[in-house]
Amino acid sequence: MEKIGFIGLGIMGKPMALNLLKAEYSVAVLSQSKAADALISAGAEAFPTSKELAQTCDIVITMLPDSTDVEQVVSGPDGVLAGIRTGALFIDMSTIAPATAKIIYGQMQEKGIDALDAPVSGGQVGAEAASLSIMVGGSEAAFNRALPVFQVMGKNIVHIGEPGAGQTTKACNQMIVGMTIQAVAEAFALARKAGVDLEKMREVLLGGFAQSRILDLHGKRMIERNFTPGFKIKLHRKDMSIALQTGQAFSVPLNGTALVAGQMQAAIEQGNGDLDHSSLLLLLEKE
Amino acid sequence: MEKIGFIGLGIMGKPMALNLLKAEYSVAVLSQSKAADALISAGAEAFPTSKELAQTCDIVITMLPDSTDVEQVVSGPDGVLAGIRTGALFIDMSTIAPATAKIIYGQMQEKGIDALDAPVSGGQVGAEAASLSIMVGGSEAAFNRALPVFQVMGKNIVHIGEPGAGQTTKACNQMIVGMTIQAVAEAFALARKAGVDLEKMREVLLGGFAQSRILDLHGKRMIERNFTPGFKIKLHRKDMSIALQTGQAFSVPLNGTALVAGQMQAAIEQGNGDLDHSSLLLLLEKE
Repeated sequence: MEKIGFIGLGIMGKPMALNLLKAEYSVAVLSQSKAADALISAGAEAFPTSKELAQTCDIVITMLPDSTDVEQVVSGPDGVLAGIRTGALFIDMSTIAPATAKIIYGQMQEKGIDALDAPVSGGQVGAEAASLSIMVGGSEAAFNRALPVFQVMGKNIVHIGEPGAGQTTKACNQMIVGMTIQAVAEAFALARKAGVDLEKMREVLLGGFAQSRILDLHGKRMIERNFTPGFKIKLHRKDMSIALQTGQAFSVPLNGTALVAGQMQAAIEQGNGDLDHSSLLLLLEKE
Repeated sequence: MEKIGFIGLGIMGKPMALNLLKAEYSVAVLSQSKAADALISAGAEAFPTSKELAQTCDIVITMLPDSTDVEQVVSGPDGVLAGIRTGALFIDMSTIAPATAKIIYGQMQEKGIDALDAPVSGGQVGAEAASLSIMVGGSEAAFNRALPVFQVMGKNIVHIGEPGAGQTTKACNQMIVGMTIQAVAEAFALARKAGVDLEKMREVLLGGFAQSRILDLHGKRMIERNFTPGFKIKLHRKDMSIALQTGQAFSVPLNGTALVAGQMQAAIEQGNGDLDHSSLLLLLEKE
């Protein structure tokens, strides 16, 4: 089995790396990571820098908050690029800009390293349950090599296409999720003001064309007024920016995406950026 | 079994009335209706006016295009109100403004007639297959009386609450459907321009939080570029107006609904009002 370096042990990365250990992969982590101790106790090896980690691994995975974090870890001093071995595979599972994913792919290619962009959907619950959706961009050969590793972390694993295609798909996912939340929030805010029983409404709408996982899960959150994340508005806001930048790059007018990004920004300005994204509802209510 | 008068034999009303005949209800229709002949051949009785029809029926159902059509058929000369018998039940299954539904309920109450607003979702296919969702506003007693009749036309039948609650729920349904179409259209327009395989994207997104019936069915339409209705943009535009009026009446800001209503209006101005609502995609593309 290939030795895997895993960089980024946050809410998502930590359970994903633990699942790799459970599947008996050798895993290397960064010793300064927040959750490094938990991983080391579970059997991971620790290295002080990304360069040193990369020097010992067959596959290097990153799971970081933003485009700049990935760029830093890859190209910064003592970064992955400085250490990664010929024949190794680099996989970025973070959600970053498709344009950045393509730049990183190019940097890896120059060193003779194959790379995949493989962002995920499914949240902390999906990471823990190893049921993530994984959207993969890159070569067929790299995808096939990574597949057994992906299968330890996720269930719905699709090779979408060229380098960057995984990130484009993830951006599209976030656009749809954000706009569907806005749709459900507007409907629930109106129904509540009009005195309609929200639980009954949710029930009947789930049986028709308005059905969505968002209506099901986030509709329930809105009824129970449970806005504990889940997925924080400020993180979703970042993803909507990626979508808008990509829309601009390809000259596609994304009016709905822009509107919802604006709603998310308003929620952040009101101090609600750390609430679950279903709390966009609160912007439509006045108690 | 109660005798049912059915007014409005359009794309939806005709199969609904035929299902009542199949279930061996006595059905009365208007002789000047477009599809009257088909219903008469199937065993329906015909009357020249809504008043005369109402005089012989236990339950009068309307299934008409718009609020003004229902007002006209109910309160106009030789209308339902002029003929409907004490103890009869009036059911409007059209999609109209909740405010109009409440006015009609009040007019019926004055004559001692019970009334329900019971709009449907599921389209022509659902009407023919007797699998409509039916969202009902009105008294518990009226709902229970109508239930066997509803069960002949639909499957997912929910008593939402007070008079008007059925129409409010339908407005919410149309808001969510419209905004979800816009969401899927923006994602597909972006992905297509970025060179992503749309079928693979649809597959992976259906496995995650972006899942919806719209992504499934209308996503398929967008990939196949099949914009034969289905549900026409110009009819959905009307429903979005109802939602916006209701939002204004209850002081709820419906920014996403307004945006999508605007997109629908733009499609109509471009001559595409008779296409399926999934063709909102066309506004985001420049060939």
